[in-house]
Amino acid sequence: MTRTETTHYFGAGPALLPTSVIKQAAEDLIEYQGSGLGLGEISHRSAPAVAVVDNTKSNIKQLLNVPETHEVFFLQSGGTGEFAAVAYNMLAAFAKKTGKKGKADYIVTGTWSQKAAEEAKRLGVDVNIVVNGKKSSPTGKYDRIPEPETWNAFGSAEDTAYVYYCDNETVNGVEFPYVPKVPEGVELVADMSSNVLSREVDVSKFGVIFAGVQKNIGIAGVAVVIIKKLLLEKPSDEELTALNIPLAPIVFDFPTLVKNNSLYNTLPIFNLHVVYLTTKLLLDNGGLEVQEAVSNKKAEKLYATLDSVPEGVFNLLVEKNSRSRMNIVFTVIGGGKEKEFLDGAKAKGMTGLSGHRSVGGIRISNYNAVSEESIDYVCSWIKEFAS
Amino acid sequence: MTRTETTHYFGAGPALLPTSVIKQAAEDLIEYQGSGLGLGEISHRSAPAVAVVDNTKSNIKQLLNVPETHEVFFLQSGGTGEFAAVAYNMLAAFAKKTGKKGKADYIVTGTWSQKAAEEAKRLGVDVNIVVNGKKSSPTGKYDRIPEPETWNAFGSAEDTAYVYYCDNETVNGVEFPYVPKVPEGVELVADMSSNVLSREVDVSKFGVIFAGVQKNIGIAGVAVVIIKKLLLEKPSDEELTALNIPLAPIVFDFPTLVKNNSLYNTLPIFNLHVVYLTTKLLLDNGGLEVQEAVSNKKAEKLYATLDSVPEGVFNLLVEKNSRSRMNIVFTVIGGGKEKEFLDGAKAKGMTGLSGHRSVGGIRISNYNAVSEESIDYVCSWIKEFAS
Ligand SMILES: Cc1ncc(COP(=O)(O)O)c(C=O)c1O
Ligand SMILES: Cc1ncc(COP(=O)(O)O)c(C=O)c1O
Repeated sequence: MTRTETTHYFGAGPALLPTSVIKQAAEDLIEYQGSGLGLGEISHRSAPAVAVVDNTKSNIKQLLNVPETHEVFFLQSGGTGEFAAVAYNMLAAFAKKTGKKGKADYIVTGTWSQKAAEEAKRLGVDVNIVVNGKKSSPTGKYDRIPEPETWNAFGSAEDTAYVYYCDNETVNGVEFPYVPKVPEGVELVADMSSNVLSREVDVSKFGVIFAGVQKNIGIAGVAVVIIKKLLLEKPSDEELTALNIPLAPIVFDFPTLVKNNSLYNTLPIFNLHVVYLTTKLLLDNGGLEVQEAVSNKKAEKLYATLDSVPEGVFNLLVEKNSRSRMNIVFTVIGGGKEKEFLDGAKAKGMTGLSGHRSVGGIRISNYNAVSEESIDYVCSWIKEFAS
Repeated sequence: MTRTETTHYFGAGPALLPTSVIKQAAEDLIEYQGSGLGLGEISHRSAPAVAVVDNTKSNIKQLLNVPETHEVFFLQSGGTGEFAAVAYNMLAAFAKKTGKKGKADYIVTGTWSQKAAEEAKRLGVDVNIVVNGKKSSPTGKYDRIPEPETWNAFGSAEDTAYVYYCDNETVNGVEFPYVPKVPEGVELVADMSSNVLSREVDVSKFGVIFAGVQKNIGIAGVAVVIIKKLLLEKPSDEELTALNIPLAPIVFDFPTLVKNNSLYNTLPIFNLHVVYLTTKLLLDNGGLEVQEAVSNKKAEKLYATLDSVPEGVFNLLVEKNSRSRMNIVFTVIGGGKEKEFLDGAKAKGMTGLSGHRSVGGIRISNYNAVSEESIDYVCSWIKEFAS
């Protein structure tokens, strides 16, 4: 067990976690609370497992100041599973309220919101693309959040079940600097898989926030969902079917999961425990106000360094006001130069810097567990490389 | 990290795993192959992660002698997720073959096959209950696999997409001593969540075998699926919808998952690695022929001990020829006696012996990781208690 305190790893996910968290998790995998058994080996309904659920929930509620109107739960899923789960459950909640099958508005600003829109459409949702960042851009790439004034009109509370967006586009490095304003009475759904718990969020503005945990707060295997309690009412399966609304498989049925305290089926308790440990660490370190300041500072250092390099070396792909604090993407100008950048970084012990296979280039992920030391280190390599 | 080699734990799942496996997994969680990073922190598309997928697949193929006609894959799911996944995918495969929406025959012999039938029905499958063990039993309980001669007729290859059964009913302690014989051309689907890799199986007889891994071979978070390759063909989404066949959420779409080597979405690689380690251990120990002999020997010891106790002490709930080798269930006769049995066991360091909340009584789970020593130990307590 030779892992050092600082690993200079910048992968986009599954991603680096705090060494203290990983070491504690490893101990608890072997033996949990002196029981002779590890946390992966006990019933999800046993008292210690239920405590993991309850305590993780409580940590997240504290960190995000989740209001009484909202509930937090967990399920065996990642981001892609939630693309479908959100569609099923939001249509069901809307049908309960209105007796109708609602439409859905998708704000598409990158690969993940595009995939979410496709999945909803595939499952029979009447999807309206309010805006497509790629089509709105002169570059033909997802490199900006287009100005809200240029978006198509949202649907109304009478016909639209939800507006969907991805708060941070992991592949493209595009992050919302604000919460989109939607019409009164329309529910907002956000995918925060890659920036969850990196900044404060006004949860009251959302119908649903979801996040696969494997980027910023855990290892793959669970998703966190924060949901407005009013959205946990649904019509009968017969009514839904009559309205031509597809039923969620029971493992994705939010009301069922909440009613069973996230334990309708076997939740991967060990994986959730890693989330417990990271959220505990965040709380111990002062909560999201502190984490947000740290995240911003690290991101600013990176962008300042990249911006200070003379033109002709790097190509920063994303518009300034849409730049992600979590995934900093750029290309290296000149044939073979990218490989040179990556090889040089690797020789210095820095890995996980390749861009997503669909975009290429370089991507520096700046998740919570990436230390300021690592950021300083990569910044100095950027400067050295450029000169 | 004080865990001893032998923990006398008999829980039904998530359940005990070999200490050597858990210790290796914990090390690999901290740092994998000297990379400075743990196995939970690397991209599921990186070479070491893909190797975990490939090697686990290869181990399972070897252990079960999976023929060329079949494929093995993994997904983020447990048993309940597969209840739905099987319904979607088997209907789609049948529609491809016949152009029709098929029916499904369910053999219901316990809680889990009952739930699977309910989930399929809920999702719009025309479910035919071929037999219900509870209704066929004079006790009104799931305590037997009724004689095949008493079952209703199966559908035909022209109208029936699949026949479903649960090979081992974890809650009720009912296990099939044979593979049900289905009409030529009808596909057989088996839930082997709680007895997978405890005995040899003739995979060629099956359309699909699935197992949530958290009982016999891993920690919760992934399911293993073995599927006949011919069943990976499906009609277009439009054709399926026209036939009134619900589409699987993409994360449960078997053809998509197989096409992407189980990596369409983020697979919990760490959880799969635990399966790799247990399957490696099985292979090192001589494979399933050896494991089956060990499992049978342990189960026979338990039943022989229980059968040798004078009448009036225990009530063995399950008919002799349907007794599960994995989950041995019985009640203790007399008010307060059950608590006495459990408390006495606990005082001797034996835990995980309570029956499922829906059934009560005692349940001794005899999974692969439960040592013969533990079985001998609980047998001697059974004898001591009885006398
Ligand atoms: C923002 C975002 N949403 C969704 C996903 C898909 O997550 P998963 O692979 O767990 O399905 C990702 C994965 O990288 C992501 O970054
Ligand atoms: C045979 C069998 N099938 C299905 C399940 C359901 O599994 P999960 O809780 O992973 O959904 C179980 C769980 O105990 C089981 O024993």
